[in-house]
Amino acid sequence: MVNAKLKSCVAARLRNCRKSMIEQSLDGLIVVDPLDVSYLTGFGGEDSVLVVTAKRKVLVTDSRYTVQARQECPGLLLHIRKGRINEAVALTLQRFFKNKRKPPVVGIEADNITVSEFHTYRKIIGKGLKSVNPLVTPLRQRKDDYEITQIRKAIRVAQDAMTQTVELMKIGMSEIELSARLEYEMTCRGSIGTAFPTIVAAGARAAQPHAIPGKSRLRKNQSILFDWGARINGYRSDLTRCFVTGRIRPVFADAYKWVLEAQTSAIAEVREGNPLAQVDRAAREVLKRSPFPVYGHGTGHGLGLFIHEYPRLYPQTPGTLQDGMVITIEPGIYLPGQFGIRIEDDVLVTKKGPKVLSSLAKDLDSVKL
Amino acid sequence: MVNAKLKSCVAARLRNCRKSMIEQSLDGLIVVDPLDVSYLTGFGGEDSVLVVTAKRKVLVTDSRYTVQARQECPGLLLHIRKGRINEAVALTLQRFFKNKRKPPVVGIEADNITVSEFHTYRKIIGKGLKSVNPLVTPLRQRKDDYEITQIRKAIRVAQDAMTQTVELMKIGMSEIELSARLEYEMTCRGSIGTAFPTIVAAGARAAQPHAIPGKSRLRKNQSILFDWGARINGYRSDLTRCFVTGRIRPVFADAYKWVLEAQTSAIAEVREGNPLAQVDRAAREVLKRSPFPVYGHGTGHGLGLFIHEYPRLYPQTPGTLQDGMVITIEPGIYLPGQFGIRIEDDVLVTKKGPKVLSSLAKDLDSVKL
Repeated sequence: MVNAKLKSCVAARLRNCRKSMIEQSLDGLIVVDPLDVSYLTGFGGEDSVLVVTAKRKVLVTDSRYTVQARQECPGLLLHIRKGRINEAVALTLQRFFKNKRKPPVVGIEADNITVSEFHTYRKIIGKGLKSVNPLVTPLRQRKDDYEITQIRKAIRVAQDAMTQTVELMKIGMSEIELSARLEYEMTCRGSIGTAFPTIVAAGARAAQPHAIPGKSRLRKNQSILFDWGARINGYRSDLTRCFVTGRIRPVFADAYKWVLEAQTSAIAEVREGNPLAQVDRAAREVLKRSPFPVYGHGTGHGLGLFIHEYPRLYPQTPGTLQDGMVITIEPGIYLPGQFGIRIEDDVLVTKKGPKVLSSLAKDLDSVKL
Repeated sequence: MVNAKLKSCVAARLRNCRKSMIEQSLDGLIVVDPLDVSYLTGFGGEDSVLVVTAKRKVLVTDSRYTVQARQECPGLLLHIRKGRINEAVALTLQRFFKNKRKPPVVGIEADNITVSEFHTYRKIIGKGLKSVNPLVTPLRQRKDDYEITQIRKAIRVAQDAMTQTVELMKIGMSEIELSARLEYEMTCRGSIGTAFPTIVAAGARAAQPHAIPGKSRLRKNQSILFDWGARINGYRSDLTRCFVTGRIRPVFADAYKWVLEAQTSAIAEVREGNPLAQVDRAAREVLKRSPFPVYGHGTGHGLGLFIHEYPRLYPQTPGTLQDGMVITIEPGIYLPGQFGIRIEDDVLVTKKGPKVLSSLAKDLDSVKL
């Protein structure tokens, strides 16, 4: 029942996790982020914690998830807790290390644990518990084959749903109706929820980069922006497209071309080893030459089990692109009171250059409805 | 444009927050949880931090949210950051306290800040920064008039959407299709996303309390469970209902009556001053007398801006019910390989007793389609 590729990918991820544990001199790791747990096990539920040591691993969960965990992670040891989760985790650690001479050093990632949760764990587990630097999140930046396949599926579902929604789109429909329809089409195609709250913004409302769908109704000769994504087997897609009903105003067409050029220039910089800031800069420099303002948000972000993963693409971001990263590229132009334009695609970083995973048309012709 | 009731409620919430700050001897508070920020301002965006002192407050946000913040919180001082959020927060604090003799004591809630974020803030702000006990979350337990109105709206939207979905439900539809339709109907009625991932589980799949909608198709003489909710102006509803297509098996009818009795008994215990554990116990004791197993999950939870708020209803939960709390009551019976039944309503705690806010039929007759 479980995908064989997933099984071998999970095994490889766990090997990498254990390598990182050795680098940080940890005997054990308490994995608390549900997405990290999912990454290292294939388990899709919540409220569960994974305990990893050099040789063992156990999922601390509760009776709501027994059936799901057995189906999704056959062979994985389960600790079905009845009491508090941190006490169950401590009990598991005690069992793992009961015959050891010296007390184990157990890590919990400082990025994923609140100050109060950490104190609670510390009280139960003792001084052996350390808050450590990110360990699983860095591994998650580079996607394996299974993950790329899932992201591709999430992109396909999002694209097919949009194609269908555009066919049904009519003057007079509200942003809410369009958003409802788009989400319906994604869910019918297998999306579990959405990748993030869908943005549908008509006319001047699109000048707010994070507009929530409202009651505004689509008019003739108006632009509309969609920023949407699907979630398939936990993996997300993230796309933005703009359309115009009827006549395209010259200023819109001009701005659109600038955004498209900015996006194309940024995508051209996507290649293993290139600085992240260089990709960001490529887009901004195009817009600096334009008569339009440069956007205030980032040029893109990593994408996977979470919607905003590392790396982030900002002017000041350190670091370089690595083979296997999947990132969005999404420059925009926002003219308050007039319109907003953003074009966003999902791009796989390879040694040879960018591999654009999304394929929905974005030339100016495709904008006109 | 902004609801006058919201404005006065937000002012009252802020007064309560400042009282709690005084109790904890704080000169300032950094509010980082987006829902707490929303609670204290009316702002619905993300990635923003509220800084509160005895006399001032400022929302530290970025250019994506300028328009939204001005619309949603007219009069609120904005700090539109360009750099990192924690540096912008530190700058705001410096401005607020620049003429003070002694360095201010500034709190950040230990429940809402990760160990690494806290260290970053500490580095920038210095020793005056303290991680403190929950301060805003406890206030959020008791809902004010504006909040109860929003929860009522979220319940109405969820109920109307379900009524419509049941009308359209046909043998052969998949769980995914039913979930897509239900969510579509909620979105069309104004729900922004869903209150939580919708559960639609047919037949034996409902024995998993947290089943994700799958490709299983509805058959004749089969039971189906829906656990769903809408989100209106940030506030959520959370309901569960079961239906049977055609003939109801005697064992199902029997179990259903036990669940309904358990729920009725628990609701009867809802009244200001009653122990939380007493409400939980009321439901479990009914099921202990039944031939069926007692559920492993909680009997209910608080509901509001978040789907699982305090209080929680477990056998060991300390504390008592307070006027203005809105809680779910949701006992269930799960027979692996056969069926799952859960009945869930949203209940307002008052001094006089329970006020059940949801009204969708739940007698055994209403179960049969």
